[in-house]
Amino acid sequence: MSAKILMSKLINQLIHSLTVLPGVGKKTAARMAYYLLEKEKHKGLNLSETLKTCIESIDHCRVCHNLTELPICELCSNTTRDPSTLCIVESPSDLISIEQTRFFKGYYFVLMGRLSPLDNITPKTLPIDLLLKRCQDSSINEIIIATNPTIEGEATAQYLIDLLKQNPQLKLSRLAHGIPMGGEIEYLDTQTIARAMELRTQFEEELI
Amino acid sequence: MSAKILMSKLINQLIHSLTVLPGVGKKTAARMAYYLLEKEKHKGLNLSETLKTCIESIDHCRVCHNLTELPICELCSNTTRDPSTLCIVESPSDLISIEQTRFFKGYYFVLMGRLSPLDNITPKTLPIDLLLKRCQDSSINEIIIATNPTIEGEATAQYLIDLLKQNPQLKLSRLAHGIPMGGEIEYLDTQTIARAMELRTQFEEELI
Repeated sequence: MSAKILMSKLINQLIHSLTVLPGVGKKTAARMAYYLLEKEKHKGLNLSETLKTCIESIDHCRVCHNLTELPICELCSNTTRDPSTLCIVESPSDLISIEQTRFFKGYYFVLMGRLSPLDNITPKTLPIDLLLKRCQDSSINEIIIATNPTIEGEATAQYLIDLLKQNPQLKLSRLAHGIPMGGEIEYLDTQTIARAMELRTQFEEELI
Repeated sequence: MSAKILMSKLINQLIHSLTVLPGVGKKTAARMAYYLLEKEKHKGLNLSETLKTCIESIDHCRVCHNLTELPICELCSNTTRDPSTLCIVESPSDLISIEQTRFFKGYYFVLMGRLSPLDNITPKTLPIDLLLKRCQDSSINEIIIATNPTIEGEATAQYLIDLLKQNPQLKLSRLAHGIPMGGEIEYLDTQTIARAMELRTQFEEELI
C-alpha cells in the first residue's frame, strides 16, 4: 500500500488543487489543506464561495481593462476625475499604489502584463486594440506611461511610445527616475545613481 | 475616493479570504487573487469546488483520528496489517513519512497536534480519550511514541508515557535518536551529537 493511497483521495485532490496558487508547492499545499480541514473549516468554506463568486463575476472593465465585477469599473464611471490625463500601468496593484499617493487625478489603463517574448507575451496578447481605442478620446492631452523600470517594462514603454507618438496631439510622458525619497545613496544600485546624476535638476528649477 | 474603494469589492473580499491560508499575508493574497482571476479561472473554480467538497466530507477517522472522508479510514480498515503495534504520531504528514519507509506494518494513532500550553493546546484539546480507548485493544503489545523531538513533542511524549505506563502489559517505545543517515557530524547541533554519543551502540550489537 503506497503512501499516496494511504492519504484520503479527497485530501490529495485538495493538495493538488492548492498548488495552482503561485508560489505554493506540494509541501506548502499540504500544510494549507490540513490547516483548513483541521482548524478553519468555516473560513475555508468562505474562501471556496468567494473564489467561485469572484471567478464567475469578475471580468475586464470595457474602458480601462482592469478587473471588475461591473461592465465599466467604478473608477472609469467616476465623472469627477480629470479626463485630460491617462496613466498606463502594468497591473491593478500598480494602479492602487499610484492612487494611494492621491497625486494623480486622471484615468488609468491597465495592461495586465508587460511585453515578454520569453513568456509568449507579445503585443497581440496585451489589450493594445482597446488601449488605442481608449486613446482616441479627444479629451486626453497627456498619456503617462507608468510601466516598471525593468527590462520588460522598459521594452513595453518603448513599444507604446512608438505606437502612440503617431498622434502628435498627445503628450507622452514617463514617471521620473532617480533616487527614491528616503533612500540612501550608499545602498542604491549604480544604474539608479547614474540615472539620477544624468537627470539632475537645478536647485532653482526644483524650488519653483 | 480611497484606494480600497477603487479595488473591486469582490476582489477585496477574495484577497481577505485568501489570507486565511497559513503563511499568506495581504500582498501574497493579492498576487494569488489576480493570478487566479487573470490566468487560471478554470483551475481556480476547481480549487473552489474541491475545497468545498473536502470541508463538507472530511472528518476524523473514528479509530485513529486521522482525517478521512470515510467513517473509518482505509488504513484502519486494512486487516492485513500487524495489530500488535500502534504508532502515535503528531500529524498526518508524520504518518505518511513513516509509511513511506515501508518499515512499519502496524497501525497508527494521529494526535493532530502536540501539547503546547502557550497555544492553549492541553490534554483536553487532544483526542486523549479516543487514544485511551484505542489502547484498550487487547491485541496491542507495543506502543511506539513517535512525536517530534521538539520541546512540545518531548513534553507530549512524556505525558503519554505517564498515562500509558499504567497498563504494565503495554511495551512503550520511542524512535531512536542519533545522527541522521548521510548527515555530517561537522554540521550537526551539539544536542544531537551528545545524544548520539550517549546512546552509542556496540559494533557487535549493530551487526547482529
